[in-house]
Amino acid sequence: MSDRFTATYLIETAHPLQEAAETMAGEQSAGTFVRVPGESDELRERYGARVEQIRPLGEVPGPSLPGSRPPKGEASPRYRQAEVTLSFPSDTIGTSLTGLWTAVSGNLFELSPFSGLKLQALTLPTAFTDAQPGPGFGVVGTRELTGVQGRPLVGTIIKPSVGLSPTETATLVSKLCGAGLDFIKDDELQSDSPHSPFAERVGAVTRVVNEHADKTGEKVMVAFNLTGDVDEMLRRHDLVREHGGTCVMVNVLTVGLASLQTLRKHAELPIHAHRAGWGILARHPLLGMEYPVYGMFCRLAGADHLHVNGLRNKFCEPDASVIASAKACLAPLGNAAPALPVFSSGQWAGHAPDTYAALGSADLLHLAGGGILAHPDGAAAGVRSMQEAWAAALAETPLDDYARTHPALKSALERFGS
Amino acid sequence: MSDRFTATYLIETAHPLQEAAETMAGEQSAGTFVRVPGESDELRERYGARVEQIRPLGEVPGPSLPGSRPPKGEASPRYRQAEVTLSFPSDTIGTSLTGLWTAVSGNLFELSPFSGLKLQALTLPTAFTDAQPGPGFGVVGTRELTGVQGRPLVGTIIKPSVGLSPTETATLVSKLCGAGLDFIKDDELQSDSPHSPFAERVGAVTRVVNEHADKTGEKVMVAFNLTGDVDEMLRRHDLVREHGGTCVMVNVLTVGLASLQTLRKHAELPIHAHRAGWGILARHPLLGMEYPVYGMFCRLAGADHLHVNGLRNKFCEPDASVIASAKACLAPLGNAAPALPVFSSGQWAGHAPDTYAALGSADLLHLAGGGILAHPDGAAAGVRSMQEAWAAALAETPLDDYARTHPALKSALERFGS
Repeated sequence: MSDRFTATYLIETAHPLQEAAETMAGEQSAGTFVRVPGESDELRERYGARVEQIRPLGEVPGPSLPGSRPPKGEASPRYRQAEVTLSFPSDTIGTSLTGLWTAVSGNLFELSPFSGLKLQALTLPTAFTDAQPGPGFGVVGTRELTGVQGRPLVGTIIKPSVGLSPTETATLVSKLCGAGLDFIKDDELQSDSPHSPFAERVGAVTRVVNEHADKTGEKVMVAFNLTGDVDEMLRRHDLVREHGGTCVMVNVLTVGLASLQTLRKHAELPIHAHRAGWGILARHPLLGMEYPVYGMFCRLAGADHLHVNGLRNKFCEPDASVIASAKACLAPLGNAAPALPVFSSGQWAGHAPDTYAALGSADLLHLAGGGILAHPDGAAAGVRSMQEAWAAALAETPLDDYARTHPALKSALERFGS
Repeated sequence: MSDRFTATYLIETAHPLQEAAETMAGEQSAGTFVRVPGESDELRERYGARVEQIRPLGEVPGPSLPGSRPPKGEASPRYRQAEVTLSFPSDTIGTSLTGLWTAVSGNLFELSPFSGLKLQALTLPTAFTDAQPGPGFGVVGTRELTGVQGRPLVGTIIKPSVGLSPTETATLVSKLCGAGLDFIKDDELQSDSPHSPFAERVGAVTRVVNEHADKTGEKVMVAFNLTGDVDEMLRRHDLVREHGGTCVMVNVLTVGLASLQTLRKHAELPIHAHRAGWGILARHPLLGMEYPVYGMFCRLAGADHLHVNGLRNKFCEPDASVIASAKACLAPLGNAAPALPVFSSGQWAGHAPDTYAALGSADLLHLAGGGILAHPDGAAAGVRSMQEAWAAALAETPLDDYARTHPALKSALERFGS
């Protein structure tokens, strides 16, 4: 098996499970509705995907997705779910990450025997993972650049998302640097725009960040959203580096896997991967792909920071899914360095203890927007409340106890803890 | 409105429709759970997305997607669907196509008030569309390169998808050229692999294609699948051009929008856009985005050929959706040239009349795999059967009548027309 990679899917079908699984394997090898000349048994055997395992999961009342076709002549089809593992010969894709993506997703989601199909997990040969660059910085490199050790990085997002001029942004960033943040990021909606041209924003913001570093010795990491076409992204990366910036951000689902790969080849700064649009790929339990798989693609391609949502977020994702995604960032993956999981969405100090308990690690970036900027005593108190909450969490002290001697945390609990 | 772009969504929610729509608009502007300093009413007014129209569509029995949250304290929530149009000020994204993508998709699909959200349509200011390159060749350029006028191009896919060596592929392509095809493409699964290195395949295949052209004066268009990271794609494009090839193919969902943009900037050959993996984005009626929208992104970015599935395909997509996608390729879109819609999946001669009747145009590429290669009288007869079927369709003659004097079509009807 060491020269094969495997993909595990949750499927739903009214067809016999073995037959349905064979259809998946066939679509990813021969792929036509009649056998064609040249498609010998030997070639099928050598290059075809293979059904490795089928674990039946039971019947469901009806199809989860419309459009599937039951077996011919079946008047009252019964829909069953199962976990199916396929294996593919590495020789079909070599060490191409885009080849892997096409092989394990491809046309599968449209196949008519299926009323549900979701990619859940991948296992990859070491020769494959070792051929990918992986994160250039990851957890360790990000900690080195920021000087933050032994606790999570605390960060925020520049808000409002759109509308601020470069000067207004720099004024806000200056204030946020003064507030003690480790990390600040552009909003995913703000890259390059008439009211905030990328180059002007980078110039204005790095000036205040560098001034702050000169004064305090602490270089706040600012993730500049360079999302654009690939040429633009590479130019923007160089501009950030030239100005002494220490991080670039990209909306990975907007630009795509190959763009991320190419950015990584060129990059000399950590890549902060935002997952805007992710809901399309995973919102439905029987369609798409789980984030740990998508995150694996991004990490192998070279993303250093990966957004994973946050506990009790404002979105639809359950906490267990958030934690599984974050754990995947830190899990062993060949030679690839761990990526830093980024927790965000409706976060504030109160999320620290549960996050720590569930993740079992302090290797994360905790982003709060309103949870810092709307703290009743101001942004500096907002940052302090986050740091205090993490100190309490790491010491396994209840927040309420810790808050007795820590007024910033106390105010945060009163304001946001309803 | 001319300086704003609009996005129309099908939504489903248990919240009041106006409130839900405002949440969508808010997420795409301020984007935090409490109002933050700096977010003035004036700034909201100037840079915020705006709800333009809400068209209620009625109640549904229950939520289409799990994970949504009904209004607080609502014991028996009622889920309604509606069509919502938002408008966004162009100033937030300038003329950035990746900016547009993030603005109209972004985090929307994960928002907790929604049990369904699908992007259905976009309208864009002329200043925006005119700033995009669009197809470099499109319908007209592809017809010029192939010399095919007044009828659809007929093409096939190299099968089996994987396993053939470059020499075996060239032998097959030579045979297919001899069979009279206008167009041949790599399978989406075959790009660069140990058993078929891209450069070797291009060398071997272009040799036989060029020989055929020297002999007959007809240059068959071969779409070489150059999917890879962006550097690889640009190098592969140059290699194809240097060998006298006339088309490159890319799996657009694998590489992503920014990669397509960058390929287009560089490309001197038509870009054949394959949509492997598309099912994730559109299979569910209440999640993701409709293909005419995705196709608009690809066309503006510069795709010349766009896969649209085929009538009575082997997948789940209904015929009406296929035709809507194909029509969108040909519809006016600022200065962008029409893209060539590519019909494929379980296609054979019998699909010509319905396809022509529904599309109302002969500007398409009709791909058949088994429908040509498994024709009982061989591939040349398979191609003839397709051409004959299209001649019949364009003349509005029933296939059975036409087949009386056209044996290749007759055999196809007997073999595939059960």
